[in-house]
Amino acid sequence: MRAAVIHGPNDIRVEQVPDPRIQQPTDAVVRVVNACICGSDLWAYRGIAARVPGQRIGHEFLGVVEETGAAVSTVRPGDFVVAPFVWSDGACSFCQEGLHTSCPQGGFWGEVGSDGGQGEAVRVPFADGTLVVLPNETAGEEKLLPSLLALSDVMSTGHHAALAARVRSGATVAVVGDGAVGLCGVLAARRLGAERIVMLGRHEARTAIARTFGATDVVAARGGDAVGAIHELTEGQGVHAVLEAVGTEESMRTAISITRDGGAVGYVGVPHGGSAGVEISQMFNRNITLAGGVAPARAYIRELLPDVLSGSIEPGLVFDRTIGLGEVPDGYRAMDGRTALKVRIAM
Amino acid sequence: MRAAVIHGPNDIRVEQVPDPRIQQPTDAVVRVVNACICGSDLWAYRGIAARVPGQRIGHEFLGVVEETGAAVSTVRPGDFVVAPFVWSDGACSFCQEGLHTSCPQGGFWGEVGSDGGQGEAVRVPFADGTLVVLPNETAGEEKLLPSLLALSDVMSTGHHAALAARVRSGATVAVVGDGAVGLCGVLAARRLGAERIVMLGRHEARTAIARTFGATDVVAARGGDAVGAIHELTEGQGVHAVLEAVGTEESMRTAISITRDGGAVGYVGVPHGGSAGVEISQMFNRNITLAGGVAPARAYIRELLPDVLSGSIEPGLVFDRTIGLGEVPDGYRAMDGRTALKVRIAM
Repeated sequence: MRAAVIHGPNDIRVEQVPDPRIQQPTDAVVRVVNACICGSDLWAYRGIAARVPGQRIGHEFLGVVEETGAAVSTVRPGDFVVAPFVWSDGACSFCQEGLHTSCPQGGFWGEVGSDGGQGEAVRVPFADGTLVVLPNETAGEEKLLPSLLALSDVMSTGHHAALAARVRSGATVAVVGDGAVGLCGVLAARRLGAERIVMLGRHEARTAIARTFGATDVVAARGGDAVGAIHELTEGQGVHAVLEAVGTEESMRTAISITRDGGAVGYVGVPHGGSAGVEISQMFNRNITLAGGVAPARAYIRELLPDVLSGSIEPGLVFDRTIGLGEVPDGYRAMDGRTALKVRIAM
Repeated sequence: MRAAVIHGPNDIRVEQVPDPRIQQPTDAVVRVVNACICGSDLWAYRGIAARVPGQRIGHEFLGVVEETGAAVSTVRPGDFVVAPFVWSDGACSFCQEGLHTSCPQGGFWGEVGSDGGQGEAVRVPFADGTLVVLPNETAGEEKLLPSLLALSDVMSTGHHAALAARVRSGATVAVVGDGAVGLCGVLAARRLGAERIVMLGRHEARTAIARTFGATDVVAARGGDAVGAIHELTEGQGVHAVLEAVGTEESMRTAISITRDGGAVGYVGVPHGGSAGVEISQMFNRNITLAGGVAPARAYIRELLPDVLSGSIEPGLVFDRTIGLGEVPDGYRAMDGRTALKVRIAM
């Protein structure tokens, strides 16, 4: 089969690789229908996150189950499924508590020895604990696929940020980061009843999506100016909840500075840089909570799915380009150059 | 009247100062019955926290109301009261939400222009919003006074740490810091139903109090060894809730390292040092929450008071020495040299 392989910085190729096959009785093989490129894949593409040359890549996909191991019971060949961006055994105490990302047997698609989502098929470890079966008829609903695909990561991650930031009905919210996760954070905050949602961003195509998703205000400034603008919008108090979807020291500093005393930052931007942006003295004096981390998407998909199926949320709007598998290198270039927000790969 | 005054590092004197008097209609004057010395006062004593020579000091006291301004309605002359370690107007949105420490009109006893708790009397701004009236008969119950005094700060702060760390019935908890706040954190965790409480400390008199307060285990190690010991006690997982009551980079690093994935650190140690101990990458991968800050004691005193009155908690056991006002400089020396855990001042 063909799959995307990363050979080094700026060097993603689509190549022939061995067909996946069942290796453990708990495995399934899934034929990929849709995959996509994530903002976090760009860290590997840029050489900032280390990869072994030859590693697979991609961690978001929809597909049809082709084959299952003898011990798989809840997933059957022919099922249309969505994969969260990590696999998990579904049985350990963390999986039972809904923190699948801490499953000791879990792993990340594309890590050494595993398949990535950006390929024709994927061997899925712990199929029962990992895959979520979708209504079979949705496989044919082309318009729905992007939003179902978004459940793999970005919509679930936006939801995680909103929960971690304790977004509640009537809350004022700010979102730092106008990437796909930040935009889905807007959608998640609106879904949880936020009254006012401020998007910090300056890219007009993105802030337009933010407004579609429920942002009531857009602040184009950055750093200290952004802090000033948020304080102006909130009578000097800041917002109850901040969704941090960037992961740099500057973004964290901004997030903490615009949080109202007693409020929370939900951080889901993969940290790049140290902890210098976490101003602990400021947090202490103002009782700021910092919560979040890598999102246990598996725990959220079932909760979010009905809203996707009903059309009440449409996270798939974050995809602004669709390509075939052969064009994956172009897709990376487009996202790296910010000419595409998020690229979908249709097989 | 006489009061403790700080003139510089290691230079606390008890001196004649002007008698406090009503300045605003919302003021009260309280005659101090009991005050005490706080671990956080030592930062000023050691010259690490800056003070203007001549500032008052002390922020915990019990007393009897002597006089009230015309606008004071809930506190009357003769009332026996406890003062939280900050004053607050009781009327703003933060006070209404229980975050009195963020009251825009609030302040800290001993700040420039205000009285400190370590003196014969104190002018109390916003008496209605600040003071909590105690049952009058308790003023004569000598055995109860230390525990009522502890509500001013250390017991309320320990409770804040436990709430911030999300201590629940059945939880495993660790407490970093064997000072009075850490010990009260043990008591607070037990009160909230923690099943297992590990105290990190090596000072035997203190760990003995921890055991009295409900600690089930004591770990005498520090740093990496402490982390190893906690993991050994918890099947490699760490504890659900960590109460951080020190405030250094090392203590924060330890606290985060021993938190179970998905768990929370309740930080109440006044931060001294930067944010280097907040390992954001580790927090991200393991979904660790950091919550806490300066405790809104005013919000907790009413909740904790019945348990003090019934004797079901006895936080006053943290006081291991009682002195008169004239001996305050000796009290600082004793706490600085760790020959006293916490010193009470009886007028």
